[in-house]
Amino acid sequence: MKLVIDCLGGDNSPCANVEGSLIALDRLPGLELVLAGDEEAIKKELEKHNVSAGARAKIEILHAPDVITGEDRPTDAIRLKRDSSMMKSIRLLREDPSVSGIVSLGATGSLVAAATLRIGRLPGVRRPCFCPILPTMSGGIVGVCDSGANVDCTPIQLVQFAVMGSAYMKNVYGIDNPRVSLLNIGTESEKGDDLRRTVYKALAGLAAENVINFTGNMESRDLISGRHDLVVCDGFSGNVLIKTTEGTALQLLKKIKKDIYSRPLYKFGALFLKKMFAEEKEFMNYQNYGGSVLLGTEKTIVKGHGSSDSKAVAKCIEQAYKMVDSNLNGIIESAVSRLPEEYE
Amino acid sequence: MKLVIDCLGGDNSPCANVEGSLIALDRLPGLELVLAGDEEAIKKELEKHNVSAGARAKIEILHAPDVITGEDRPTDAIRLKRDSSMMKSIRLLREDPSVSGIVSLGATGSLVAAATLRIGRLPGVRRPCFCPILPTMSGGIVGVCDSGANVDCTPIQLVQFAVMGSAYMKNVYGIDNPRVSLLNIGTESEKGDDLRRTVYKALAGLAAENVINFTGNMESRDLISGRHDLVVCDGFSGNVLIKTTEGTALQLLKKIKKDIYSRPLYKFGALFLKKMFAEEKEFMNYQNYGGSVLLGTEKTIVKGHGSSDSKAVAKCIEQAYKMVDSNLNGIIESAVSRLPEEYE
Repeated sequence: MKLVIDCLGGDNSPCANVEGSLIALDRLPGLELVLAGDEEAIKKELEKHNVSAGARAKIEILHAPDVITGEDRPTDAIRLKRDSSMMKSIRLLREDPSVSGIVSLGATGSLVAAATLRIGRLPGVRRPCFCPILPTMSGGIVGVCDSGANVDCTPIQLVQFAVMGSAYMKNVYGIDNPRVSLLNIGTESEKGDDLRRTVYKALAGLAAENVINFTGNMESRDLISGRHDLVVCDGFSGNVLIKTTEGTALQLLKKIKKDIYSRPLYKFGALFLKKMFAEEKEFMNYQNYGGSVLLGTEKTIVKGHGSSDSKAVAKCIEQAYKMVDSNLNGIIESAVSRLPEEYE
Repeated sequence: MKLVIDCLGGDNSPCANVEGSLIALDRLPGLELVLAGDEEAIKKELEKHNVSAGARAKIEILHAPDVITGEDRPTDAIRLKRDSSMMKSIRLLREDPSVSGIVSLGATGSLVAAATLRIGRLPGVRRPCFCPILPTMSGGIVGVCDSGANVDCTPIQLVQFAVMGSAYMKNVYGIDNPRVSLLNIGTESEKGDDLRRTVYKALAGLAAENVINFTGNMESRDLISGRHDLVVCDGFSGNVLIKTTEGTALQLLKKIKKDIYSRPLYKFGALFLKKMFAEEKEFMNYQNYGGSVLLGTEKTIVKGHGSSDSKAVAKCIEQAYKMVDSNLNGIIESAVSRLPEEYE
């Protein structure tokens, strides 16, 4: 299996990307990697590590000195930054049938745009969706799709997100019969707008046929409770959902830290809790749970957090590896093709 | 000024409602209250307190033994539960010109439906919006409208929410020139769907005319940062926004508590932080910031948290008092009438 690693665009690039690639190569048998980025810089990073001849033989370098940043407009970036590591990686992915997927820490908007425009959709899939993973209070995880690739959604698209996300949670995370919920403003079946009511009925219908395990509407306050394995939503409210969860947790921890420093007594007590607070912060740190994946594209696309370190990069590569290894795309294609005609 | 207090439907009703009413009467000169609920139960509650003859003279009782709960479908509740405290209060509000507003802790859906169907809108207002208040990390507050009264919104409605919410934050909370943001999936002006792009342009236009102080798009993770006084959104994503903020904060505090109990060392350290943790919980407790108000209706509607205690009820009454006293409805009516024709 061959994957391409976009080695630019992250906060710790290319250092974290190269080191993470070496960790992944060590762990995953049969994996080969193409490292895209500035050739000299990548070689320098490789020299820092004691790379065995066997591992080195599994690495190719794709010279691509330019980088796409969050400042670039996605549509401009795709057209104008042809020599960027991201666009060269996407081109390789499109043109080389031996390359199965990409891992990138680069600008999300540009990656999603490049992937949807340059890499085809799986047969039958209306729109690819973006699916990040969040931690839950019960120690598990929950997937959210779509979380921003599609701001306007039709019922058919949401039904397909449920099927694709369900296959993802099962095949990549080993969750048997994932509990699928629909993000809504109340739990009763008639809640929400027309879109939600239509999708609710469709998902309940699919559950009756044992296609998915639909457990009903979910209110956003319940996201990380541990009672849901996959939450289906339009990309606008999904984006609000994940960014609010992340933002609130981090801001609350920041406030606690500030409050601790406000009194000597608190400061003293907090000495004993230092490790716990560090763990809470790690717990809410998305990068520990792998990257966001784009579901429904012909090749595997994993987007890691921009601030990923080498461990997080290795985790993203492992995620892409599992997606390819489990034939997730084949499973999605087959599941989508078996949907009742009105949801194809 | 006369307000009607729905004394049923809260977790601590009628006890908290009656006690809260007495606190408010003591604080607010010129206030008179109609307490709606089971007459015997209300009288019994009043007897518990040492009510002065002066205070007692300011209280009327409206006998209404039935209660609307969260289990009732709003449309059924309005038609069928005519003897409920909520519906009798709304009827009084509609029919008695001397009654200016209502405070209720009852079922949100039924209250919003009853208010929009039975109490008229202010002239020019397209749709009333629901505006709760959240705490921010800088010690201030932020209003969010709409947070659930309208799941589908047009650009004109969102523009009006901005104008109404801005008047509310200024006149009730004394925030001079409130910073108004538009909830979006990115900060750049062209982000989001057609609705967001249209509203962005309209709000920027109103800011250029000094009608409101529009500061641009806001990503949801920034809600409680203290950089925003009012966030404008459709009722679906606004509902997701506030419930995620509340849910994440409470679940994270719960997790910290659980983790503290997992080790004797943590437990020992936490002894010194007990007061701080209680304060963090209070900080995130919505009821400390007053109720959610419905903006744009002919009379003042304040919805308190179902779990409100007497202090929180008093706060809600004070909020309604300020809204009436500051002539907020007159200000909103005039502001909406001065909007460019396309946003009227």
